[in-house]
Amino acid sequence: MVAGRLIGVGVGPGAPDLLTLRAARAIEAARVLAYPTLAGAPSMARGIAAAHVGAGVEEIAIDVPMTPAREPAQRAYDEGAERIAGHLSAGRDVVCLCEGDPMFYGSFMYLQARLADRFAVEVVPGVTSVSAAAALARLPLGAREGRIAVLPGTLPDEALRAGIAAHETVAVMKLGRHFGRVRALVDSLGLTDRATLVVRATLDGEAVVPLSEAPEEAPYFSLLLIAKDTDPWL
Amino acid sequence: MVAGRLIGVGVGPGAPDLLTLRAARAIEAARVLAYPTLAGAPSMARGIAAAHVGAGVEEIAIDVPMTPAREPAQRAYDEGAERIAGHLSAGRDVVCLCEGDPMFYGSFMYLQARLADRFAVEVVPGVTSVSAAAALARLPLGAREGRIAVLPGTLPDEALRAGIAAHETVAVMKLGRHFGRVRALVDSLGLTDRATLVVRATLDGEAVVPLSEAPEEAPYFSLLLIAKDTDPWL
Repeated sequence: MVAGRLIGVGVGPGAPDLLTLRAARAIEAARVLAYPTLAGAPSMARGIAAAHVGAGVEEIAIDVPMTPAREPAQRAYDEGAERIAGHLSAGRDVVCLCEGDPMFYGSFMYLQARLADRFAVEVVPGVTSVSAAAALARLPLGAREGRIAVLPGTLPDEALRAGIAAHETVAVMKLGRHFGRVRALVDSLGLTDRATLVVRATLDGEAVVPLSEAPEEAPYFSLLLIAKDTDPWL
Repeated sequence: MVAGRLIGVGVGPGAPDLLTLRAARAIEAARVLAYPTLAGAPSMARGIAAAHVGAGVEEIAIDVPMTPAREPAQRAYDEGAERIAGHLSAGRDVVCLCEGDPMFYGSFMYLQARLADRFAVEVVPGVTSVSAAAALARLPLGAREGRIAVLPGTLPDEALRAGIAAHETVAVMKLGRHFGRVRALVDSLGLTDRATLVVRATLDGEAVVPLSEAPEEAPYFSLLLIAKDTDPWL
């Protein structure tokens, strides 16, 4: 018997029509679907893809606990990977849904790392939250010799400061409880008037807010875009 | 009369089925289509979108000369923007096609910079060539606290060296005649065995080549992915 393929499918940043045609077809063809859920909450990726999920599809929800320690999440991916491996070994393809792009801070890489030595893997790239935020804010990320950095807000102060200082354009992800600290850093670099908070791009309630007018807490699904040099855009 | 909207549409990295559903619908609805051509060559963006272009659509090709000086290209965008403005002023939406994502080293930003003060602008984000390359190579770009840099290969040595040294993952774009220099820099940093050349991702002839086995010249549509730390992928 030929083993099934593990297919990682990026479903894009949130709006269901930002799926690619290839992603929609892969989901429509799927007989087994896997996706992560965070601490029991409904899967965002499954919600984005809903219109393309057929009847009678077998679904594998991999529930990932929200803990600072890595081990509980790693155990969840270990167990999820073995459930997926059972289908692959039996010759069934498994489509793994992933918010945004599977290779861009996606959960799929944790499954791939556990299964790629035994099974064929395909990846369908998707639109990232950074592209979606830039589109909503109509803020170019890169032009000509411009450098772009993508930095998690969870980084220590010095790494964040150096990264922000060294690039023409910066996207800071994973703001959450680090937002106040990131904001103070941006301000200390004199870049507050170059920074834009983009909230829930492509989802209900999407908003573009200058950092100087942003609320004290960053809403879920927000990221910060910092653009220093607008001259190359002409 | 209500003016038309300028709609920048990312058509993705090359494979026609990596258009988003939203992009396909916007192109199908378009009565006026604009796109850049490089020095008279056929438009790659127009080719990717071809299946969705209706009959009788008015097409505006903006021919951008390939010169080291910025002025000739700027004049081409000036003239293209005025042709587009004529349609917008007459109440017709204009859909501008863009390879990849409009805000990611895309030509659309040059049109937007000339028209956004007079007309409403919308942007449909697309899949970038970086996401497509990472998907083909099955190489995660970022995980956990990993930092990602996107660097044009046209940068001076010191900027390239510093950028490559400071990030867990780096994508080097625009290799062209700079490939030999970039390769020597990567080698001097001891990172050759961490670097992968991805050629024509999602197009005919796509290939993933370890940098140590890459040919002397980088083919068109290739980019270099450098990934230093694979531990977070578990």
